[in-house]
Amino acid sequence: MRFMETPDTPDQPTEPAAAAEPANGTAADQPTGIAAQDWATASAEPQYRAAVVDLLGALAYGELAAFERLADDAKLAPTLGDKAALAKMAAAEFHHFERLTDRLRAIDAEPTGAMEPFAKALDDFHRLTAPSDWLEGLVKAYVGDSIASDFYREVAARLDTDTRALVLAVLDDTGHGNFAVEKVRAAIEAEPRVGGRLALWARRLMGEALSQAQRVVADRDALSTMLVGGVADGFDLAEVGRMFSRITEAHTKRMAALGLAA
Amino acid sequence: MRFMETPDTPDQPTEPAAAAEPANGTAADQPTGIAAQDWATASAEPQYRAAVVDLLGALAYGELAAFERLADDAKLAPTLGDKAALAKMAAAEFHHFERLTDRLRAIDAEPTGAMEPFAKALDDFHRLTAPSDWLEGLVKAYVGDSIASDFYREVAARLDTDTRALVLAVLDDTGHGNFAVEKVRAAIEAEPRVGGRLALWARRLMGEALSQAQRVVADRDALSTMLVGGVADGFDLAEVGRMFSRITEAHTKRMAALGLAA
Repeated sequence: MRFMETPDTPDQPTEPAAAAEPANGTAADQPTGIAAQDWATASAEPQYRAAVVDLLGALAYGELAAFERLADDAKLAPTLGDKAALAKMAAAEFHHFERLTDRLRAIDAEPTGAMEPFAKALDDFHRLTAPSDWLEGLVKAYVGDSIASDFYREVAARLDTDTRALVLAVLDDTGHGNFAVEKVRAAIEAEPRVGGRLALWARRLMGEALSQAQRVVADRDALSTMLVGGVADGFDLAEVGRMFSRITEAHTKRMAALGLAA
Repeated sequence: MRFMETPDTPDQPTEPAAAAEPANGTAADQPTGIAAQDWATASAEPQYRAAVVDLLGALAYGELAAFERLADDAKLAPTLGDKAALAKMAAAEFHHFERLTDRLRAIDAEPTGAMEPFAKALDDFHRLTAPSDWLEGLVKAYVGDSIASDFYREVAARLDTDTRALVLAVLDDTGHGNFAVEKVRAAIEAEPRVGGRLALWARRLMGEALSQAQRVVADRDALSTMLVGGVADGFDLAEVGRMFSRITEAHTKRMAALGLAA
């Protein structure tokens, strides 16, 4: 899903080896527990297996929804070149979707079944935050994907080595981030009052994203258990709080880089 | 663009060697003139070069528009599996678009400039034929792509070897044809009166496609000259008439195969 990333995103590991470094600062430098195991070993624990199926299902549906959103935004593109650029991003999201559903099938999980629990939350998010113009679409793609990517990277550090490699691969920056940043910055420079409107829009996006995420976590036991502890290297609740702080902080920095007050 | 093809599409060559066979029945079995030359030789003729740039531009914009249409139709999909199937087709169209624009750049033509003359006709076609439901979308994709593919295959036989190989590659059936045929047939079997509505819809699509195609041909000198003669192996006007007959006939057969009266 991650296709936009500012060069200055702080403290986000980009390689599997670095990502395995624990983010909570309490563990040792070397991965331990699940994070040191491969899928064959880790999946012997049924609750861990269920959590990974949930995670891959949520991620896969997110990619499919991102594909649709980008294809939609392509219609708002002011030039043919912009349209082609968005179509390219949409196609990249679709290929991430395919890798995730291939993986679900490979671990004997039915992709549709794995995605369905997350369809409503993601559809609602996109319905409630339909951009009204090209710039709102760019800000949404940038903000939404950055937050989702930060979140999945935090989770990835706690996954088995095989699942982690896949998750990091589909979050890999495909170099499109600069596209949104450049276009939005140029628009604000040309007409500064656009910045105020887009800053409000970014705040609304963050609010809707958090409220849908909360709903998903409340609904999905396996996933939540992995996140808040109980399975192997899960977070404790205080750590979840710190994780949200880190994500919010990174968001604030990205908004500033974009010329927007967060 | 071709992603749907009935197994019984008549007389449509599928390989470059076969496609080089003249369709007007007057020439010999071996390609002659332009059809026997490679791009380096054929493009020495400026009018031929301009016609190919037009053709690739029209085809590229068609792929981009098809991408958008399929991504849009994915929203109407009744199931997650159907949605994923349409997204896959859309991504395939985008990759065809990329091959065509890469080729335009390789022959020193600016892709945007090459596409722009065809944008309005294709946009108008899609605007005037926006499907109101999932089945209309499937019929449109099937009918529209089949007709476009028949047309480009006829033209391909008259192109230089390099351009012909590219055009046939992007028209290559990616195996999605059966998807639309199966879904539409099943819907008509389940509710026969759906067939009458879809038959009317297919006729309207054919009418709009022909009227936009006519507009393009009237506007674009280089392309028209290649089609109606004047450059190398161009058609004569009687041959254009026969070509339209062949395309209409193939359309009628496809509609019958779909369970629709054409």
